[in-house]
Amino acid sequence: MGGNFADRVIAATRRLGPLCVGFDPYPEQMAALFGPPGSDAIAAFGRALVECCAGRVAAVKPQISLFERFGAQGFETLTGFCEHARAAGLLVILDAKRGDIGATANAYAEAYLGPAPVLHADCVTVNPLMGRDSFEPFVAAAGRMGKGVAMLIRTSNPGAADLFDAQTAEGPLWTRIARLLAPAEARLRGNSEYSSLMAVMGATVPAEARRLREILPHALILAPGYGAQGASAMDALAGFLPGPKQADGRIRPEGGLVNASRSILYPPGAAVAGSRAAWQDIISSAIGAAQADLAAAVV
Amino acid sequence: MGGNFADRVIAATRRLGPLCVGFDPYPEQMAALFGPPGSDAIAAFGRALVECCAGRVAAVKPQISLFERFGAQGFETLTGFCEHARAAGLLVILDAKRGDIGATANAYAEAYLGPAPVLHADCVTVNPLMGRDSFEPFVAAAGRMGKGVAMLIRTSNPGAADLFDAQTAEGPLWTRIARLLAPAEARLRGNSEYSSLMAVMGATVPAEARRLREILPHALILAPGYGAQGASAMDALAGFLPGPKQADGRIRPEGGLVNASRSILYPPGAAVAGSRAAWQDIISSAIGAAQADLAAAVV
Repeated sequence: MGGNFADRVIAATRRLGPLCVGFDPYPEQMAALFGPPGSDAIAAFGRALVECCAGRVAAVKPQISLFERFGAQGFETLTGFCEHARAAGLLVILDAKRGDIGATANAYAEAYLGPAPVLHADCVTVNPLMGRDSFEPFVAAAGRMGKGVAMLIRTSNPGAADLFDAQTAEGPLWTRIARLLAPAEARLRGNSEYSSLMAVMGATVPAEARRLREILPHALILAPGYGAQGASAMDALAGFLPGPKQADGRIRPEGGLVNASRSILYPPGAAVAGSRAAWQDIISSAIGAAQADLAAAVV
Repeated sequence: MGGNFADRVIAATRRLGPLCVGFDPYPEQMAALFGPPGSDAIAAFGRALVECCAGRVAAVKPQISLFERFGAQGFETLTGFCEHARAAGLLVILDAKRGDIGATANAYAEAYLGPAPVLHADCVTVNPLMGRDSFEPFVAAAGRMGKGVAMLIRTSNPGAADLFDAQTAEGPLWTRIARLLAPAEARLRGNSEYSSLMAVMGATVPAEARRLREILPHALILAPGYGAQGASAMDALAGFLPGPKQADGRIRPEGGLVNASRSILYPPGAAVAGSRAAWQDIISSAIGAAQADLAAAVV
């Protein structure tokens, strides 16, 4: 898994499609299968999920807060999940949404991206509110290590309109964030035409995702909000670009990852599956359905 | 330490002044005193610091990233630091700058503020970029638990101008953030005239801090940037309000905390102090100097 993060994402998504499975573990919902809620249950849940994903999806996105709430043990479990997922060939996007400055930002960047990370991810989500000194340390670490950094540019939640869409003289605030990131996008270009700078662009705002391409033509996109939050495959892929012509003569959108969490982890019947094997069948079906839905979206 | 966070801050700062000691541990700089860099060294550093602060300052602010970089052990050390500081009567402001939505935000809020926190703080710093669904879970948890939430409104770093100062039709973006928080400010009012909603307002931008009082008249202020970042005591206290007349007939500003990290933790000579006792003398002098400087600022 050497080389540039963007190149790895493009290679993986050409092979397996753009689905990224968000690992948001609520062990309370899965006690029948994985035991009493706690970090051990999350570890078992994560191992079973990785088995369903390995060789079938490009990436997984663990949500750090749901591990952190179990303290040091939760942190240990997250470390193990990331190792296990990477060993299974999955790209790991750590959903941490960190945002701080200077030495503090650098501590986060090195903890997640390396060298000698305490928690080995391929890419980490970052909150840019504090300005360029908050994202530069992550961009620098990503550049040094061949990793990625996924910057919040316009998220998919209802409250996102409060600040991201605030009108400034140059357009909505999110366009200002995107413009601030243009130098980082250029610095993190790989051998593919894409950059290891990812833009987190909600699948719920397809018009904004298309407009992003005017500002950051080479950024990878990480699109949350597909599935449970109501966005369609076409919406989720709105900011993607035409990929190469495929064997079947079709051209599919490429240039990023589409995240689905709840619709994959907690589909109907999963929590009451009679066995781990039955659970894995349900999860595998949910993965297959999302992938078929995304693959049907052609340019 | 029951009751409302704002009331506890006002009681503590009337007694001890507004100084908050930011615990940004770089054990690499302190190896001669606290042993090889790692979480054990941070634990020893933290214990020695709490001894210097107990009964002398109102609050300490540990920076979570500098613990997290040592993984699960670092998390354990942070848990111990918070317990130790609270047991010594210090208010603990956890500098986490978390920002996420829904169940994720709730997981962070419960992990830090309780009930049954994994890491027991009195207040946690929060990043509001994702809008109201990102801060509501923290405000709700603070209200339930009598805790505080310190929202980034206008930080002290150079890059803060990039987004916080972006001009919108209603004024700079930071004023929009402040207005979004007005209902939370009202909900978290205590018996004092202050609210357990804290506004993080850089000591480096005193004009903005004064203007904040028109929007959030009752918010506590957490002012970073005093000392090493160059802001004076008068700048740091710009948004504070007149306190009660004191025995000496003077009126001192109140209504929040002024943070100093590097100038307290790493004053000249500290890293090469010949013994722990000599180190504690140096740190105690730095605390005394900052307190005298802040106390000299009268309304």
